[in-house]
Amino acid sequence: MRVYLAGPDVFLPDPLARGAALKTVCARHGLTGVFPLDPLADEPAAWAALPEWQRIALRNEAHIRGAAALIANLTPFRGPSADVGTVFELGFMRALGRPVFGWSTTAEPFAERTRRHCAARRSGGRWRDAEGLSVEAFGCSDNLMIDGAVIASGGALETAEVPAATRWSDLAAFERCVIRAAALLTAPR
Amino acid sequence: MRVYLAGPDVFLPDPLARGAALKTVCARHGLTGVFPLDPLADEPAAWAALPEWQRIALRNEAHIRGAAALIANLTPFRGPSADVGTVFELGFMRALGRPVFGWSTTAEPFAERTRRHCAARRSGGRWRDAEGLSVEAFGCSDNLMIDGAVIASGGALETAEVPAATRWSDLAAFERCVIRAAALLTAPR
Repeated sequence: MRVYLAGPDVFLPDPLARGAALKTVCARHGLTGVFPLDPLADEPAAWAALPEWQRIALRNEAHIRGAAALIANLTPFRGPSADVGTVFELGFMRALGRPVFGWSTTAEPFAERTRRHCAARRSGGRWRDAEGLSVEAFGCSDNLMIDGAVIASGGALETAEVPAATRWSDLAAFERCVIRAAALLTAPR
Repeated sequence: MRVYLAGPDVFLPDPLARGAALKTVCARHGLTGVFPLDPLADEPAAWAALPEWQRIALRNEAHIRGAAALIANLTPFRGPSADVGTVFELGFMRALGRPVFGWSTTAEPFAERTRRHCAARRSGGRWRDAEGLSVEAFGCSDNLMIDGAVIASGGALETAEVPAATRWSDLAAFERCVIRAAALLTAPR
């Protein structure tokens, strides 16, 4: 069973080694991890004329369509939320009706992360940032569309609170997520 | 033609007034704007048992499925990228194969916004943040999955550089986006 490994892991200093590490965990539990940098079998010849970034986008969409589930690294990325490219892909897979899973190396709730990040203040019964925009307070791990999709799709969220120095290397929450995905995907129908 | 109005506009101090303003622009160009806070016709009775945030997530997914296109407010939100809830919805609609549009009240390229936000430095031929993660440098308006989806879907991106004080009120880029969407959706097949 192929699972697409969405995440900002592609931005790490050695993304290919990271992809290999994630795939090793998947294989340990009977799944085939598909990393965003993997080549696409039968890539349409016409794509060769496109700029590199458009090819990457189309290739990742095709990788997602070819996978049975998606596991997203939702570790906060340059702010209180997950990487937007990762979340785009999670929404894409959710619309296809297949299970989506998420993991993160922080267990701090989204509302608290966001309040801290934007120095929010209470105003009119709500927490608001400096521009007056309200802060979601539903007890979710990130924006409610993400948590909602994971739950409605039959997936799961796994988090671990790790030291800052290992937040892009610790794979404990990822492995728990892979175990959950393997159990769902290989369960008798 | 119904168009779903994705965006962090729901977090503004008067979200209903904001939704009404966006819908007025849509109506001016022959489109019916659907705002995330709109009630859903024929909402399944079973949803009443769910927590509010799960109902909101399912309702927004249903609103997107019921729309012919999506127009996303991609104005940077609490960091260099768009709001992740908005981007989830954009990915969701992209997977449905319908056109997705984006607009923003900043015209500054994503790479420059990100470098500034995370005080990136050149290292090994790439811009990297303090954690060593690289910064995308493809000349896109946000993460390449967003720009790629907009282009591949037949949509368009519209930006305007506006003063900070009006970045959550100026609708010039939005209206240009609505005009592009109306032209595409009402074009003879």
